[in-house]
Amino acid sequence: MARAGRFPRGELQGVYRAIRERRDVRSGFLPEPLSEEVLGRLMDAAHRAPSVGLMQPWRFILIRAVEIRKAVHDIFLRSNQAALDIYEGDRRKKYASLRLEGILEAPQNLCIVCNPECERGHRLGRLSMPETALYSAVCAVQNLWLAARAEGIGVGWVSILDKKALHEVLHIPENIALVAYLCLGYVDHFAAEPDLERAGWERRIPLDQVLAFERYDPRWRARDEKKV
Amino acid sequence: MARAGRFPRGELQGVYRAIRERRDVRSGFLPEPLSEEVLGRLMDAAHRAPSVGLMQPWRFILIRAVEIRKAVHDIFLRSNQAALDIYEGDRRKKYASLRLEGILEAPQNLCIVCNPECERGHRLGRLSMPETALYSAVCAVQNLWLAARAEGIGVGWVSILDKKALHEVLHIPENIALVAYLCLGYVDHFAAEPDLERAGWERRIPLDQVLAFERYDPRWRARDEKKV
Repeated sequence: MARAGRFPRGELQGVYRAIRERRDVRSGFLPEPLSEEVLGRLMDAAHRAPSVGLMQPWRFILIRAVEIRKAVHDIFLRSNQAALDIYEGDRRKKYASLRLEGILEAPQNLCIVCNPECERGHRLGRLSMPETALYSAVCAVQNLWLAARAEGIGVGWVSILDKKALHEVLHIPENIALVAYLCLGYVDHFAAEPDLERAGWERRIPLDQVLAFERYDPRWRARDEKKV
Repeated sequence: MARAGRFPRGELQGVYRAIRERRDVRSGFLPEPLSEEVLGRLMDAAHRAPSVGLMQPWRFILIRAVEIRKAVHDIFLRSNQAALDIYEGDRRKKYASLRLEGILEAPQNLCIVCNPECERGHRLGRLSMPETALYSAVCAVQNLWLAARAEGIGVGWVSILDKKALHEVLHIPENIALVAYLCLGYVDHFAAEPDLERAGWERRIPLDQVLAFERYDPRWRARDEKKV
């Protein structure tokens, strides 16, 4: 029977390269803003994500105004202080030395929100797994991240933000979920390794340690609990 | 200042093509299994996803045994009957006519689970947004989905599955979250449009209706509540 073909060599390579060379960028953003054309391509890539029931529950808030980015950065500073307080000793020193966001440096910030109760999609697939509405919006983040890498644009995901405070600054209604807050912009370079690995915060785990066959591997749970 | 460049034309095209031509595949899977080499490339792509604190919380269970796929398919049948029961009239008839999974046809199934309490990553980024552990595992799904499309391999995400029953069949401990259950395999073709759009279940929404600037667009919520 006929079988759908793979992409030609260059195109296939591009997909794997974007996946391999994508980085969570927290520094090195350049001040030049993205053109409307490039921004349009990135947003379109995000909008082509899979979604449960074709509900397309993602909503994108593009933030360029400095005063709003400053307000978000203030939230980050407070949330980051609270986060620092859970660490002690060397780990605390290391945490304090990490660069964890580029809210003010990146000329574009993008907040992705989701209404998990949205009627679009007519609830298909959401009776047994309602969380797939939120997961669809996460797939949009990853589409955008890979397209951005191919365009030479850095993306950083900031999760050290008090959600309630961010809801207020961006006027997001209470029942709307905040999925991701991203910093976007041209960068001077992409690091060869993840920042957190270079800084000695955590090391990547080999693939064979996260792959099992036919059933859950009980060794996983034991390993998860070990503080490295 | 030097600026990181974009990918060469063919590579850039490949990334956008994978994003544009990716489909949620529920039929047309071919019986030929994936080689270990191709499977390895797909799993490696998934494993290169971003993760909060570099925790890499995804764990992959590859299922090829027919008896396990049959047990999962039985769960689907029961969950799908329960889902059908929320619809009435024409919508119910339409739901009943939809093809929603390829569990038995696709020679490979892949279950992605996540321990949201895993100590890896030392909790970085998870004080204010603990859900980013689960979201990291979702990014792994999307990496795999795009790499698979470039390889000419179909992927379908099945969310109509009772989680408790699936936990039992795959021996997943209670505190481990089930993130995604995927069907994977070569396919005879990729559809030009999403299945659910062709079947008249839902239509895609234009990008400009999901994009706002500087703050949440209050019209979004009103539109979400309208049953289309």
